[in-house]
Amino acid sequence: MVNHYTIAVDVMGGDYGPEASIPASLMALKQYDNLELILVGDETVISNHLEAFSMESSSRYRIHHASQRVEMDESPVIALRHKTDSSMRISLNLVHEGVADACVSAGNTGALMAIARFVLKTLPGIDRPAISALIPTVKANKMVRVLDLGANVDIQVDHLLQFALMGLVLSTTVDKIPHPKLGLLNIELEQGEGNRLLQEAGELFKKYAEVLNYVGYLEGDALFEGEVDVVVCDGFTGNVALKVMEGVLKLVHVCQNQVFKQHWISRLAGLIAKPFLQEAEYRLDPNRYNGASLVGLQGIVVKSHGKADAQAFNYALQSAMQEIEKAVPQRIQEQLSSLL
Amino acid sequence: MVNHYTIAVDVMGGDYGPEASIPASLMALKQYDNLELILVGDETVISNHLEAFSMESSSRYRIHHASQRVEMDESPVIALRHKTDSSMRISLNLVHEGVADACVSAGNTGALMAIARFVLKTLPGIDRPAISALIPTVKANKMVRVLDLGANVDIQVDHLLQFALMGLVLSTTVDKIPHPKLGLLNIELEQGEGNRLLQEAGELFKKYAEVLNYVGYLEGDALFEGEVDVVVCDGFTGNVALKVMEGVLKLVHVCQNQVFKQHWISRLAGLIAKPFLQEAEYRLDPNRYNGASLVGLQGIVVKSHGKADAQAFNYALQSAMQEIEKAVPQRIQEQLSSLL
Repeated sequence: MVNHYTIAVDVMGGDYGPEASIPASLMALKQYDNLELILVGDETVISNHLEAFSMESSSRYRIHHASQRVEMDESPVIALRHKTDSSMRISLNLVHEGVADACVSAGNTGALMAIARFVLKTLPGIDRPAISALIPTVKANKMVRVLDLGANVDIQVDHLLQFALMGLVLSTTVDKIPHPKLGLLNIELEQGEGNRLLQEAGELFKKYAEVLNYVGYLEGDALFEGEVDVVVCDGFTGNVALKVMEGVLKLVHVCQNQVFKQHWISRLAGLIAKPFLQEAEYRLDPNRYNGASLVGLQGIVVKSHGKADAQAFNYALQSAMQEIEKAVPQRIQEQLSSLL
Repeated sequence: MVNHYTIAVDVMGGDYGPEASIPASLMALKQYDNLELILVGDETVISNHLEAFSMESSSRYRIHHASQRVEMDESPVIALRHKTDSSMRISLNLVHEGVADACVSAGNTGALMAIARFVLKTLPGIDRPAISALIPTVKANKMVRVLDLGANVDIQVDHLLQFALMGLVLSTTVDKIPHPKLGLLNIELEQGEGNRLLQEAGELFKKYAEVLNYVGYLEGDALFEGEVDVVVCDGFTGNVALKVMEGVLKLVHVCQNQVFKQHWISRLAGLIAKPFLQEAEYRLDPNRYNGASLVGLQGIVVKSHGKADAQAFNYALQSAMQEIEKAVPQRIQEQLSSLL
């Protein structure tokens, strides 16, 4: 027997809104026979986009009208208070009501996190939900899961332990790593033992080293070495690391282009190398492994990159499907119980 | 009249020790007619290395024997207490005694900072020295100065203000930017206003916006856009950002090599593109803009990358010369007085 699943799609979120989310949704329906979608957003806009795809008659999706839209630069507090009929809020309500098994949105991360916490609440034993995503490593086909990437900027050591547990669950279930190794992001150890939070966390994690499969501290460059499967940090550090990574990828791209544009020989070389450099860029593209999980909530929420195109948004839908199939929130709950 | 300057070189520091520092020193003597060097370290080792360069007779350097060496992985506290006859300690003593105008070392950063603070003391009005370096941006030939890169992991908002002042002085004097723009490293603003420290700092910097030429918060990816000249952050975040940058540069290198190695066509394309990709890599290489300044001390200390080769160590010596010529510690002192 195949289980049937329903995902609520916040059609209006992200820089491209329905331009990305609608084709991504139609792709997902082709990928999964057991998937149904609720397309949440402006009814007219959605209908128009569906017409363009001549898929209006599909019985596996339905439109749920939402009169509002959370803007990308809107304050999370304002969005939470005043956008109660937004596509984002309604998508999360559908998860809370059990009508949908997960919500996928490319909207404003802060608002999504704030509304998700308010609507879904955290799992018992989890104080703070976290944002988790995969980043590429020097080992081909090996990714490392990092959390928190920006949900929690001022945290305590207990929160890092909760992040670790959640990361390990995502690693075994979604990333299919049988015995994931865990590391704590820290600074150069020759410079001392890191800040107070990290020193405390190091001690605490050592206590649970066996159950956590904790291997110790690692520095920022070691994130990309592929030696561990899950890396835990506070949301401020995680967000800076993620953004620096995006910035450096762009920096390399621009710098290589500058060098190739110098004269006709370099231009020719650049032309010959282009398809291969594009392939390398594609492998490292944050959009390719798109789909950050908001974990620790009583429900599944996947955040797509704000700049995600249809392909990238589709990856977020695939991540959501995996989390549904593996019942990630329940697994986190079990892990918490077994540790405590 | 040309002023004559003396630099104390910690010959034994860094992964390559005299292999890098001795040829770098000899290069510097050729570059600057008004430079004299004190080569601090094991007398026999230094003499042997100098013999290889057949430069033993130069009158512009002398050897100062040191019986100890601070190891790269040694605890800063141990190094401070027990390595009182190390090449690092003696080099810093020479600055303190006014025998040398600056010290350059590729040794253990934590130990260098700890010993420098102990020997030289901070400038009046500066609570914490900081580590500052330049990183490349997407604008050709435009670098951005970042501090703190790891000296201070748990700090207060006043320290960030001091870092800002010191960064601005380095930017005008060493980097030769007439009116440097200042930014504060923060996380995605859609996610709230950053952690408590950053919120406080934002308010404080706004008060002094005019004198600081403060343009506001910027995210990790904006570090590389070249829109500001100085970026301030706590040492934990700065160190993670720097290490992530190094990690991503390596990641791109490895990933491009993987793609070029796939089959004979890609190998050929890789071969043709190689000199240009190497040029781009060289432009972005942390060793090229080597020479992190330990600022806020009563004396000039430049830290070379631990993995620096002779060329890179030589850049660190050049940075030290610039800081001496511009009398950076005095300039910081003046800026502090004018602000307060």
